[in-house]
Amino acid sequence: MAKPVAQRGSARARVIDAALRLFAEHGVHATSLQMIADDLGVTKAAVYYQFHSKDDIVVAVVQPIFNDLSRVVRIAATMPTAVSARDALISGLIDTSIAHRHVMAVFSDDPVVHALVKEHPEFSDVTEALADMVTGEHRDVVNRVTGSMIITGIFGTSTDPRLADVDDDQMRTVLSHCSQQLLKLCAAEV
Amino acid sequence: MAKPVAQRGSARARVIDAALRLFAEHGVHATSLQMIADDLGVTKAAVYYQFHSKDDIVVAVVQPIFNDLSRVVRIAATMPTAVSARDALISGLIDTSIAHRHVMAVFSDDPVVHALVKEHPEFSDVTEALADMVTGEHRDVVNRVTGSMIITGIFGTSTDPRLADVDDDQMRTVLSHCSQQLLKLCAAEV
Repeated sequence: MAKPVAQRGSARARVIDAALRLFAEHGVHATSLQMIADDLGVTKAAVYYQFHSKDDIVVAVVQPIFNDLSRVVRIAATMPTAVSARDALISGLIDTSIAHRHVMAVFSDDPVVHALVKEHPEFSDVTEALADMVTGEHRDVVNRVTGSMIITGIFGTSTDPRLADVDDDQMRTVLSHCSQQLLKLCAAEV
Repeated sequence: MAKPVAQRGSARARVIDAALRLFAEHGVHATSLQMIADDLGVTKAAVYYQFHSKDDIVVAVVQPIFNDLSRVVRIAATMPTAVSARDALISGLIDTSIAHRHVMAVFSDDPVVHALVKEHPEFSDVTEALADMVTGEHRDVVNRVTGSMIITGIFGTSTDPRLADVDDDQMRTVLSHCSQQLLKLCAAEV
């Protein structure tokens, strides 16, 4: 029997919210479907109706992040030069990291999530494309190391628990300045 | 009966080496003392003779990293100004990250290790002191965000699996340049 889409969407959203809260508290590994059901005050069968495994929930939680990153890569790929592609990419990367900073703070250290991303080529392809595009055309050590500093720095800083009080706009401004500073090192090599 | 120190030291070192290999392959959570014993071709009792728990092994593996970081913080604290302290700290942080990059690559994403560090004040105090000193005297958003970009970028880049082929000296040079570039943003605010 067909269920109204809105109702199903909202039940899914509630499962995802509860899962995220429990993942943050216990880690993905130590969170069970039963714990998610208990948290929501529903049966485990009700959770199974929405998601067939914990991995499915984790995928649903990280999917919007990768959708955004994938869109950033696609937009950057339409830019006329490698330099303008890199600028568009970094700007999109900062926006995405900030938009998802709370979810990413929960997941950035989780090995279950890392393993899952590796197993899903549609996710790992995005991170590879991202790293390639930030490195730019010149794959020498300066560009590769500086590119990694930009990516790991943006992700690490936007999810830094010590900076939870910094608002999104301020974070965006300083991360943009940091990235521009680092890109000067790459420009010197071009 | 007293055992020769060298022999005991070497048995400890063999356990640590085997543990690190297995941690890298399976994660800390999924590695048991029995697996470590099997890998070494010894009994579990022989491993227990050296370490009373898996946590003890993890502490023994990360201890040298925190010893080095703690020394870096102590040396930086003797510098006459906050600016020279920050310079000494960043230089020491880069050296430490590179010296331990292979061990840190195994552990940087491991939640068991993160939990253990939080439980050991002698470890978490070092990371707090590090973050405070890189931020410097002016705790405004520019200095805090840039400081986090330097720390998370140095750790993230030196443990980036895509950069495993970059030799230590090249990595050190580019990370130093990256940090100097970022510090210019802080200098503009001082």
